[in-house]
Amino acid sequence: MAELSVRSVLVTGANRGLGLGFVQHFLRMPKPPQWIFATCRDPKGQRELQNLASKHSNLLQCVGSAEVANPGSIKAAAAKVREHLGHSGLNLLINNAGMVKSKMLDAETLEDMTETYNTNTAGPLLMGQAFLPLLKKAAQESPDSGLSCSKAAIINISSIAGSISSFFGWEMIQATSYRCSKAALNMLSKCQSLAYKEHGILCVALHPGWVQTDLGAAPPTTVDDSVQGMLKVLSTLSEKETGAFLDWEGNVIPW
Amino acid sequence: MAELSVRSVLVTGANRGLGLGFVQHFLRMPKPPQWIFATCRDPKGQRELQNLASKHSNLLQCVGSAEVANPGSIKAAAAKVREHLGHSGLNLLINNAGMVKSKMLDAETLEDMTETYNTNTAGPLLMGQAFLPLLKKAAQESPDSGLSCSKAAIINISSIAGSISSFFGWEMIQATSYRCSKAALNMLSKCQSLAYKEHGILCVALHPGWVQTDLGAAPPTTVDDSVQGMLKVLSTLSEKETGAFLDWEGNVIPW
Repeated sequence: MAELSVRSVLVTGANRGLGLGFVQHFLRMPKPPQWIFATCRDPKGQRELQNLASKHSNLLQCVGSAEVANPGSIKAAAAKVREHLGHSGLNLLINNAGMVKSKMLDAETLEDMTETYNTNTAGPLLMGQAFLPLLKKAAQESPDSGLSCSKAAIINISSIAGSISSFFGWEMIQATSYRCSKAALNMLSKCQSLAYKEHGILCVALHPGWVQTDLGAAPPTTVDDSVQGMLKVLSTLSEKETGAFLDWEGNVIPW
Repeated sequence: MAELSVRSVLVTGANRGLGLGFVQHFLRMPKPPQWIFATCRDPKGQRELQNLASKHSNLLQCVGSAEVANPGSIKAAAAKVREHLGHSGLNLLINNAGMVKSKMLDAETLEDMTETYNTNTAGPLLMGQAFLPLLKKAAQESPDSGLSCSKAAIINISSIAGSISSFFGWEMIQATSYRCSKAALNMLSKCQSLAYKEHGILCVALHPGWVQTDLGAAPPTTVDDSVQGMLKVLSTLSEKETGAFLDWEGNVIPW
């Protein structure tokens, strides 16, 4: 299986967990992307990312916060990326930034619902809109006729907790605001796949596995294994899979 | 098939369309509910509902706006309903209020996403929370051991547009913010069904058909047919169907 090969990638929520893992894996590739862009919200948590950016200043650029609460910051990040890329497009947008509130159903509030939805669902929508011109450009530059992640793709990091039929882990964690936002993100991925197919852009929702990040306690999969698995899955995707919901091992997850 | 028989019901968004249709059908029943409660947001559009309330003042009560943007109004509506019911519970909560913005994917804004989600998804969550004590009471009062709409139930009016796998009508109307909110509402219905089963409360998501209301243009099903169909479906539901997504003719819709 060929390794994923992209000239440019942007990862959101890159200061920790899966986002940081993606950046590290891209940097470690035998043939790394020419441009790795990272956004993240929490300046205090950025030390590790900043160290990487200093060490790999030729490859890795932090392009701001791209916060959904501030749509202007998303446009500003897109402008910075455009400036770096010059006449090139962006191959891969990984919408990884997310949040979870681990509440019982009856403790959820309007604020929980809105904040979680805006971060986990509206964020990827706005990112897709802002980076669409650069993704289109990458698709136009590519000699490939079909869809692939090496050409142009939006990857939305979802969760099996957003699978209405699987309904993983209810006994452990209800987190209704999170589940609703991820079910909606799966719908968004399907919408993006239909709207952006004509532009040559592949869109999928990925479940990273139950991963050892700040967002969950004592799960079985490491960030490294998850990211490695997801990158392998990305390398195999074609137009057949656009609009799909897959896990980090490539299995289809029911909606 | 036995007709749906409930002592008390609350319908949101009752000033027009399906909500008004539900109220009219309940009033027309040979054995109508003892209490029909109605909430609605738009005071200007209430004339028909107000006329009904004047004519049937012994059966129908308008209990305010229950607007999600103002959680206090939901609590106030619950307090009014509690006052009317005295020592009785509420059998049936029909979360019908909803909105749609018929935009293309690239024209959706953060405001569209938030407003549509708050109305279509967070609203039914907050209504379920506020009316839970009254629904529990109705379940406790009932001699039936299983789940049914005559005992205690939350009915969330969803849409096939929220089915990620069916993906009805994309060529006609993208309405991504609406689709995302309805996929999330389906997830909420599943969450409510799991959390409230132990309290004896049935929860389903219903697709009313493609109905002639202010929300859509020239569809094939009348409000009357849709409401009649949904009431027939409600009369047949048991614990087997809690957490399901059904259409107005009782067919299961894939997530």
